[in-house]
Amino acid sequence: MTETAKGNGTEKNDKLSIIAWSGDLDRIWPTLILSTTAAASGMEASVFFTFWGLFPLVKDGKRITGNHWMQKGLSAINPGGIDKLKLSKLNFAGAGPWMMKSLARDNKVPNPRELLELAQEMGVRLIPCQMTMDLLGLTEDDLIDGLEAPVGAATALLEMKDASVQLFI
Amino acid sequence: MTETAKGNGTEKNDKLSIIAWSGDLDRIWPTLILSTTAAASGMEASVFFTFWGLFPLVKDGKRITGNHWMQKGLSAINPGGIDKLKLSKLNFAGAGPWMMKSLARDNKVPNPRELLELAQEMGVRLIPCQMTMDLLGLTEDDLIDGLEAPVGAATALLEMKDASVQLFI
Amino acid sequence: MTETAKGNGTEKNDKLSIIAWSGDLDRIWPTLILSTTAAASGMEASVFFTFWGLFPLVKDGKRITGNHWMQKGLSAINPGGIDKLKLSKLNFAGAGPWMMKSLARDNKVPNPRELLELAQEMGVRLIPCQMTMDLLGLTEDDLIDGLEAPVGAATALLEMKDASVQLFI
Repeated sequence: MTETAKGNGTEKNDKLSIIAWSGDLDRIWPTLILSTTAAASGMEASVFFTFWGLFPLVKDGKRITGNHWMQKGLSAINPGGIDKLKLSKLNFAGAGPWMMKSLARDNKVPNPRELLELAQEMGVRLIPCQMTMDLLGLTEDDLIDGLEAPVGAATALLEMKDASVQLFI
Repeated sequence: MTETAKGNGTEKNDKLSIIAWSGDLDRIWPTLILSTTAAASGMEASVFFTFWGLFPLVKDGKRITGNHWMQKGLSAINPGGIDKLKLSKLNFAGAGPWMMKSLARDNKVPNPRELLELAQEMGVRLIPCQMTMDLLGLTEDDLIDGLEAPVGAATALLEMKDASVQLFI
Repeated sequence: MTETAKGNGTEKNDKLSIIAWSGDLDRIWPTLILSTTAAASGMEASVFFTFWGLFPLVKDGKRITGNHWMQKGLSAINPGGIDKLKLSKLNFAGAGPWMMKSLARDNKVPNPRELLELAQEMGVRLIPCQMTMDLLGLTEDDLIDGLEAPVGAATALLEMKDASVQLFI
């Protein structure tokens, strides 16, 4: 790790690397649009899901339980799964996300579930954050299939260093 | 498009490229400060306005009406225009933005309207997102003058790929 | 400044440069994790603290008073100091941050205060934004020790231009 990390920072690949920190519907949406667009243009694309960004990768119906009462409490308030995402504003107890998805459908814009599946089909690399999994008491079994092995911040930095486009969303 | 997109990701220009995703006053402010500062330093600067970020580009007094009742509802709650922006926190029904603008004026910091005009005078390229316009039912006539033609995510990625500084704000 | 700013944008150093715009606990945390991880990997790391991001650098117990009643009001609502940070969501009047810090402790993840001290020990360059200090009526004496001299947006852009990884958090 250290050898690579000390390498020349100037060697960039034709690659998009995103840190998906937010689990909000309106931030996951551009993350998935940008990464699938990059893949469609022939770029490599990788997304590192950390903090709130991990929630969209939790399996449908899976509740985050962990062993700790605080992990259970967090889960009750903030359920995981790509269909449960909230807007960062104008959420209105779910009316906002429903409205946005409906407008998207009328305009032939794929919704986040479709985009997530598309990303996997197109080879976008989806990488969960190990530290966040530990904090939330999640194992790989709790996350959707088709993800890469969880990694830490040092590996996420390496992903970004050789990417020609790097974004924190 | 694909040919360019497959080009070497390492060729960077002396350029700042921002994705302005947020329409919050406190995020539009740094977007405009950074892009006008870049232009003043001789850098090229381009800003791609998408999602909530499109609202500051809506003409004063223009209501987003579209043809869809949901577009009308969104407009009533979230009016466009550079003077109507809210803070992401401490908004207090408009008292927060008023206070921030007042403090800025006392400290000779330009407000967003002044910065937007300055950006246009200095040649900062302001680019609206086509998909967001479709979702909101907006046409180019609904947006302020002096913008570039609307583009999609693929073109926005190309803007970022050759930029030495790329930010998602 | 202009000479450097007009230099070739392609010369990148092995360096992480972050604009820390947010003062939220859940954004300061990844900022400090990424910058200390970068330093531990042999990268240079610099963080430019601006807007809400300046609040974590305010000395413990220091109230932002300035000379202006609006600065005093802002301080009362949004006290500074690394231990007072709130979550961007699920804050619950402080219960959320306490829960997150408790989970972190159980999982051997350093809290923000420890990470801030670690960052300083590891040579992460912490740079306050001059304009934000002016707006808030803060002097260097009001901020914690060990920071670099305050700078403006032009210098912050130069920090980013030669960095192989640049993030707006």
